[in-house]
Parts: sequence; structure tokens; C-alpha cells
Amino acid sequence: MEDLVRGELKEASLSQLKEICERLRGEIFRTVSVRGGHLASNLGVVELTVALYRTFNFPTDKIVFDVGHQCYAHKLLSGRAQKFSTLRSRGGISGFPKRSESPFDCYETGHAGTAVSAALGIAKARDLQGESFDVIALVGDGSFNNGLIYEALNSLKILSTRVLIVLNDNGMSISPTVGGTHEVLSEIKGGRAPSEDIALFERYGLRYMGVYNGNDLEELLPALEETKEALRAQSVLLHVTTRKGQGYAFCEREPERTHGFSPNGAGTEYSAALGEELTAMAGEDPRIVAVTAAMTDALGLRPFFQAFPERAFDVGICEEHACVLSAALAAGGMRPYYAIYSTFLQRAYDEIIHDICGQGLPVTLCIDRAGVTGADGETHQGVFDLSYLAPIPNLTIAVPKNIAEFRAMLRMSASYGKPLAIRYPREGKEGASNAIEIGKFEILHSSTSDIIVYAAGERCIALAERILALAQKEGMDFTVVNARFVKPVDSQMILSRREKQVITLEDNVLTGGLGDAIARVLRGTEKNLRAFGYPDIFIPHGSAAELAEEFGLNSEEILRYIRECHARG
Amino acid sequence: MEDLVRGELKEASLSQLKEICERLRGEIFRTVSVRGGHLASNLGVVELTVALYRTFNFPTDKIVFDVGHQCYAHKLLSGRAQKFSTLRSRGGISGFPKRSESPFDCYETGHAGTAVSAALGIAKARDLQGESFDVIALVGDGSFNNGLIYEALNSLKILSTRVLIVLNDNGMSISPTVGGTHEVLSEIKGGRAPSEDIALFERYGLRYMGVYNGNDLEELLPALEETKEALRAQSVLLHVTTRKGQGYAFCEREPERTHGFSPNGAGTEYSAALGEELTAMAGEDPRIVAVTAAMTDALGLRPFFQAFPERAFDVGICEEHACVLSAALAAGGMRPYYAIYSTFLQRAYDEIIHDICGQGLPVTLCIDRAGVTGADGETHQGVFDLSYLAPIPNLTIAVPKNIAEFRAMLRMSASYGKPLAIRYPREGKEGASNAIEIGKFEILHSSTSDIIVYAAGERCIALAERILALAQKEGMDFTVVNARFVKPVDSQMILSRREKQVITLEDNVLTGGLGDAIARVLRGTEKNLRAFGYPDIFIPHGSAAELAEEFGLNSEEILRYIRECHARG
Repeated sequence: MEDLVRGELKEASLSQLKEICERLRGEIFRTVSVRGGHLASNLGVVELTVALYRTFNFPTDKIVFDVGHQCYAHKLLSGRAQKFSTLRSRGGISGFPKRSESPFDCYETGHAGTAVSAALGIAKARDLQGESFDVIALVGDGSFNNGLIYEALNSLKILSTRVLIVLNDNGMSISPTVGGTHEVLSEIKGGRAPSEDIALFERYGLRYMGVYNGNDLEELLPALEETKEALRAQSVLLHVTTRKGQGYAFCEREPERTHGFSPNGAGTEYSAALGEELTAMAGEDPRIVAVTAAMTDALGLRPFFQAFPERAFDVGICEEHACVLSAALAAGGMRPYYAIYSTFLQRAYDEIIHDICGQGLPVTLCIDRAGVTGADGETHQGVFDLSYLAPIPNLTIAVPKNIAEFRAMLRMSASYGKPLAIRYPREGKEGASNAIEIGKFEILHSSTSDIIVYAAGERCIALAERILALAQKEGMDFTVVNARFVKPVDSQMILSRREKQVITLEDNVLTGGLGDAIARVLRGTEKNLRAFGYPDIFIPHGSAAELAEEFGLNSEEILRYIRECHARG
Repeated sequence: MEDLVRGELKEASLSQLKEICERLRGEIFRTVSVRGGHLASNLGVVELTVALYRTFNFPTDKIVFDVGHQCYAHKLLSGRAQKFSTLRSRGGISGFPKRSESPFDCYETGHAGTAVSAALGIAKARDLQGESFDVIALVGDGSFNNGLIYEALNSLKILSTRVLIVLNDNGMSISPTVGGTHEVLSEIKGGRAPSEDIALFERYGLRYMGVYNGNDLEELLPALEETKEALRAQSVLLHVTTRKGQGYAFCEREPERTHGFSPNGAGTEYSAALGEELTAMAGEDPRIVAVTAAMTDALGLRPFFQAFPERAFDVGICEEHACVLSAALAAGGMRPYYAIYSTFLQRAYDEIIHDICGQGLPVTLCIDRAGVTGADGETHQGVFDLSYLAPIPNLTIAVPKNIAEFRAMLRMSASYGKPLAIRYPREGKEGASNAIEIGKFEILHSSTSDIIVYAAGERCIALAERILALAQKEGMDFTVVNARFVKPVDSQMILSRREKQVITLEDNVLTGGLGDAIARVLRGTEKNLRAFGYPDIFIPHGSAAELAEEFGLNSEEILRYIRECHARG
């Protein structure tokens, strides 16, 4: 669509505003259909975004989008409509707020629960500098399960500043929102128990206001005017009910399935294997339980939840609590599997150290979306996990070469009895696997050359095999090893191999990953190690394959290096 | 004191129980006076602990101590009285719950806010295994600011199990408890606004019960009997008011100063320098603000809070929120200094990546108690920070050689404009400093030998200098370098030095620290690197100096290695 001309939205009539909403909705639908991205959440907040733009003055006023996946209408209204068709593609518009992209994006998000803290910080900075504008946090009800929100609410009186918290309540947090907080919000929304719960928000220093139909501009616009007025005196919580997927019947019906769309997706999903294996294992071992933080379907756990509802726990967007709960279930005699995306596991870092590994408890972390994940960009790449997990004592880190090996690692985990992390990408091939022993690598291709390649995980092994085929055409050869344990690495093999030229491939930043682990073993030897992986930058959005090639796992560069090694040898 | 004989507490009369309380109080006071440790919090819960032991059957019933620093009476009542005089010393009784120490310690803690999640996990495991016992979480009011507690409360209905949460409300969280939650609890406690707030707890699935004077056994004992009865039907929140430091007038008067005692403490504290420098800097730069998570005094920030109350924020035990708040204050134009202990910063790991470094915002992390900290043991050692911070893009990591250099780094930070972490131990010497340039090391002692030692931080530099003196007596010599930036390391110096034998010393685990960073630079050269630091285990309690010697920075071992290098050269 065309960008709105200056003032167009401010001067529009109600019917023109409704028409703008339809244009936005159409543009979002068309673009997401092609580029992938978040659909239902963005369709749900079109009217709310238009009403906020009508009422407030961005970018002078500031808006922080919690999680950030619901900012498409905002992007379309802030001068990015013409470029919007490039959404989530390399060099194109990001699917999340980016300060470098527009002054309308005042604060970057991607993970849940940060917006109230962020709005408070921006508002306090405003006060201290004697400035005057409004600061808004737009937060979904799913994030109201997250502990960070309560830490921020607890600060409202300490900071004595003014913010507007817009609670966008669609009853979903990818999975349907669960738990006590959701019930409280539902009761307020339903008008059943308003006084007590509203009183609680007010105790924290918030004035509570509400909009029943947040997809109706006729209700929204006067409510926002009133809210803006109230905000002059104190912080306000505006509780807005919206319908996720509004305007597209199939999205409204299936908001969980239409939360996000991914246009590629040729391979098989590791998550499906997780669901199958865990369900099968749980049939034999009554100690097996599954824990997730609001991602049942994306992680493949639906079959487990259906087969063993009493042993399956979706605790909402509470990554830390899910981790402690898993540790304690293990302390109590169970065998918990905590499935989570790599990037979100960062939230539970202290609990992995303090609760799981400090006590050496048999929790298996099933770390999905590891490595470069692609189109969601900086905040969603899973490229730090090998580095932040490796320094933790008592933890074993496994990286399967394919889905069959992933299944074998899961089966092995049931009797392992110690903390275990298995990290895997979204997609791969089923393949076949051989017997697994903790800390032992597997030779996939032997050669008599002086070059050995240690590769961790399916992306890197596939890359090694592609390069091997090219190298062989040039009359070169090298040994390829499946480095399926990044902790402990196979010191015995590493030290006993005779190849002098050692190459490591990992789908992780180079600092603290596989390359460093193998280099530590090789210290004091005459071997020459070169590590390939990602550099010390935040990797932007694009397709996962092109990002891997561009930022660190470049097949041409690796092949060139192999030629150098070959020439030396 | 002697251990109680079996059944003694169960059969004691009220006056005998009161006498047991006095014996416990005396033993705690005497032992902490000698060994150091947590005083006021332990004195406050003596009656509560005795009443819990009288009412419940440990270790069949389970109790999880949030933070764990209030478990001394529990240890004295569970067969550890005779050994209690070894508290916090190497090989002696830990100051925190330890599963390896006693079956009465069912779950280990050290960081705040985990107990409700842990109790839920243990209780759910109990249910799934068809067992029957009670599970108790003993939580201080300070932890009720922490987001984890809300994530756990949100789970109560999801998990449909039964736990007893004992809220030990003494109005303190090292610093006085702050914020909206504290006000809500105070109002309940004062009987001013009970119905609404109690209704909220009940909405989460908890029955609310209260004890006004939790230091009075006559009130406590019947209340606990009633609670135990109520627990058969549903989860209970028992709100108990206690007085921190109860029984010792100076502790009651000054609970913040008597929270913990440290018997050593010969050196000067880095924290005092932080307070002085930041206060001086803030006088010149109105953008400077200070953020802490309930540790104003321990971090040395009292002078700043007194001089600039409007720019000083204690947000309670909310390490994550404090991190996002700091990032957002920076996004809004301020220059925040977020001071925190190394071990607690683990809680904000995702926010360091996602909020501070992802956006490249000028927040300075002042990381106190880095390295081996000693008597608090496994959960409090600050030995992971170099490893978990190094992989984060956009972050600079500085490690001062003494307090004067720490001051210089702080002054430099004001104009740095990018994310910066400065990590330092509790104590050191004032010393002197030279000009600092980001990423540049400093040669402290030059030699013509073939050996170079890179040491990061005051403990390691002092160690290098001690070893140098010994080596010189034996006619050996080596170059000593102040590796004051662990990220970026001084690649130019590292590559241009001619010494072939490279030694690194760091007060951190070896995986992912200084040694690995310098090794990466040296890859492909002929240099021989040996790294000294801590191994891949959780380091127990003891004195910091003896732990360092025992676990990785052993001066005799390093000297022996230098002799080897000397013999080779």
C-alpha cells in the first residue's frame, strides 16, 4: 500500500479510518502470505493501533510493543508502507521494532514481558530531563503471566512517573493464556469480579480503565481520549479486549495455528519427532513429564499433552518458573523434559545454573530453533546457547546430526540421570543413526588426507558433506566427524587423530562454542585449528540459509581454506 | 549446642520449646560472631522454625527455604547442631541448604524467588507418584517482589496440587522491602485493606491465613495446626509477621547492617569506591543514574542515594526488571549504572543480551563480588561472568587491577557511550592507575625471558606478583601483563610479544574466559598457552583465598609450571 500522507490519519473521518483499517488488514494479510510472519496478532490490533495513532503524537510520544510481533500496523502507519512488502527478507523491513529502521521504533523487543519496564525507564528519563510526552506500553495478556511485568508493576510507585499500559487481551499467548492471572483478567473483562481486582491494580498506582470491544473504533476513540486525559494525573492501565485474527474467519477460529506463518518449511520438523518420541517413552516410563512455557504446538508437544494430560504442564510465558519447576519435579523423582526455543532459554539462565545443574538434577532441556533461525532476526537467533551452556558444571550438551539421532538421544536421556541439553534446529532430515555414547564423536567419512572437519549439528554436517563433494571433484579429501557432544567433547578422538589441519563448523557464535572447546583439548599440540561459525555481532533477519552463508558458514570460504590446507599438506 | 534427642521437640512443653528457641538463638549468635554469615534473618525465624518442626514431620514432609539464608535453626534442629560451629568453613556446614548434607535439605537455594516453584514441583511429583506428605515454601517478603513468585502463583491452578507458602514478612529484603507489593502486604498485615487483597490470593487458588506475631509460639503453634488442617483441602498462604534480628536489640534496630557478618574483611572495599566515584561523577553529569536490586548498602551506593535520591533507584529483588529499566533509561538519554553481584546478574542474562547489548545502549554493569567469593559457597561464587558475558556482541568487559584503576574505568565509562561491564572482587587495595584505553593491556613487569603471564583482575595480578618474587629468587623471570579488558583482548600486544610461553590467570571458570580469548588470538601461531583458573565444577564454601588456591589458582602449581617453561626456554 501507499504511505499515508502527513496528517491524513489525524484528519480522517470515522468511515475513512475504518477504510484505513481495511487497507492495513489487507496489506498485512497479503504480505504475510508471501513473506511469512505473525498474522493473527497483527490483524487483532489494527483498530487499536489506528486509534493510538489518532490519539497520540508519534514519534514525539513513544510506544513500546511487548514482544514486538504485533507492530505491523504501526510500521505501515509510520512511513514504511511502501517498503512493507520486503518484510522479514534480508535487507528489508524487520518483523520487530528496530531503532535503526525508524524514529517511531523507540525501543526494541522480541522476548515477552519487557515493555512495562521499558516504558517506565523511558518515562523516567523524560521526567529527569524535563521533557513532556506520553509513553505507552502495549502488552498482550500472555505477557501478563510473565514475572517481569510484576517486577515492573512493583516499581510504579518507586519510580513515581506516568505511563500508559495498554493491555491487549485476546486470551492467547501463542497457546491459549493459562493460569490464575488469566482468570483474574477474564473476570474483570467479564464484569464478574471487577472491584477487587481493579483495586489491586490501583494499589500499584494504576488507574484502571477498560474497552470492551477493541476492534470497534467507535468505542476505542473516545476511550483513548479519556485515557489520555487521565494519564495527565497518573499511570493508567487500559484493558482492551481484541480478537486475535480479527477480520479473517479462519484466523479467528484458529488463532494458535495462525499466530505465525513460515513460507519456507521444506524439511521435516524436529518438534514432531520430540512429540512422538516423548509420548512413546512416557508410555513406558511413568516418571517422564513435559514442561513448556506457552509453546505446546510449536515445540511438537501436542501429542504428549493429549496422551498424558496429567504429566504435561504449560505454565504460560514463564521460562524461569518452568525451569525451576522442572528441577523440582526431578528432585521429587520425576524425569522432566523442558522444551523451549534456544533464544528464550536465555531467560532461564540463572535457573539452569542454580536449580538444575547446581543440584545435578536429571532434567533434559530440549532446545529447539537452535542456530540461525532466520526471518525473525536479531532477537530470535539461537546462536548463543552453546556458549552460555558450556561453562555450566554438571551439564552435558548434545547436538544431533539428524532427526533419527535426535530420537536416539532422547531415548538415551531417559536413563541418563543427569542434566542434559539437546539442541537442534527447526527442520532437518530423518536420516539414520548409530549407537550413541556420551562424549563420543562419530566419524562420518574417513580420508587419508591431513585435514579433519569436526561439525556439530545437522546444518554443519550437511555443509561439510556439500563441501566434501566439491573438494573431491578437485581431487582433495578430508575426514568428516559428527561432533555430537559439544560438552564433553571427545578428547580421546581429538588427541588421537593424526590430521594436522583441524577445522570446526558450528551454527553458533565462535566465542565459547565448539571451536573453543576443541582448541582447549588441542592446546600444547602441534595441530592447526580454524573455527567457522558466527562472528561477534547480532545477526539480522533474512532466510536462515542465506544468513548462515553470509555471516560465517560460507561454503566458498571454507572450501578455499581447505584448498590452502591441502596445498600445505 | 547438643543435637536434640529423637522426639524431644515433639514432646516438649511450651516452656521447654521457648527454652529450645533461646538455645538456638544463642548458638546462632555465637557461631555467626565467629564464622560470619546471616544473622538477623536467622534470629527472626527461630520460633517459626521450631513451630514448623513441632507441627510437621521432616524429612518426610519437605520444606524449601527461599534464598536459603534463613535455614540455621532448621540445620540445628535436624541433627547438625554438633557440627554447626564449622559453619561456612571449608568442609564444614554450609550456610545454605545442601542435599548432600542432610535428607532434611530437600532442595537447594541461594538466589531469591525460587521456593514456590520448587515446592510446586516437589508436590506435583508427590501427587504423580501417589505419595502423601506436606510441602512447604518458606519465603521472605523481599522475594515477593521477585517475578518468579508471580510466575509460580500463576501456576497454582494449572498444576492443581497443594502446597503451603509461609510468607515470612519482616519488611526487609536486605534493604527495606520496597514497592507496590510491599504496600499491599503491609495493608493486609495492618488489617487495613484485607478483603480485596486476600481475595486476590484466593483467586490464585490459595487460602489466606495469618499470624500477627510470628515470634510468639503461643500464637504460632495453634495457627500452624489450623494451617495444616486447611492444607488437606487446598494450598494455603500463611502470612507470618516476624521481627528480623529478634532477641538482639542491636539487630532489631539495624536489620540491614546485621543481615550478614563477614569475619575477615582486611582490605578496602571496591563498593566504597563505586559510591564515591559515581556520586562525584553524577555531580558533573546530570545523565548519570544508579540502579540496584535491593542491595544499596552492600554495593556501596548509599552516598549516591543520599546525594541524588531522584536519580537513584532501588527496585527490590528484581534483577531482570532492573536491567530492562537501565536499558530504557539509556534509550531515553540517561547514563545508567546498574550495580549487582556477579552471581545475581545471571538472572538478567536475557535482558543483557536482548535489551542492553541488542540495542547497543550505554549502560554500565558494575559487577561486584566477582571471582570466588568464599563462605556462601556454590550459589554465590562469581566465577561464570566472564564466560557468559564474552559471547554477547556489543559488550566491552573491563577487569580492574586495583581500586584506583576501577575508579579510572568508571570515569572513562561516562563518555564511552556503549554497553560496558566492569567486574571486580569485594576487596582490594587502592593502588595507583595509569591511563586506560579500551582493549589495551598494560605491562606491569618486563623481562627478557621467554615467559609472559596475562592476569585479569586484582586477585590474579597479586598472585602473579607473588609468584614473580618467588621465581626471581630462583633466578627466573617473566613478563607480567595486566589483562584489563577480557573483551576485547589486546590482540595487537598478544600477537606482537615475542615470548613463546604464554600463561593466563583468571578468577573465573576456564571454559569461555580470558584463557580462551587469548588462545583464539594465538591460534595459528607457534605460541604455547597454559590457562589457570577454575575447573568445571561448582566450587563449595570456604575462605575465598583458600578456595582459589585449592581449586585452580594454586601458586605452587603455577610456579612449578614456570620452572618447566624456564627449563624449556
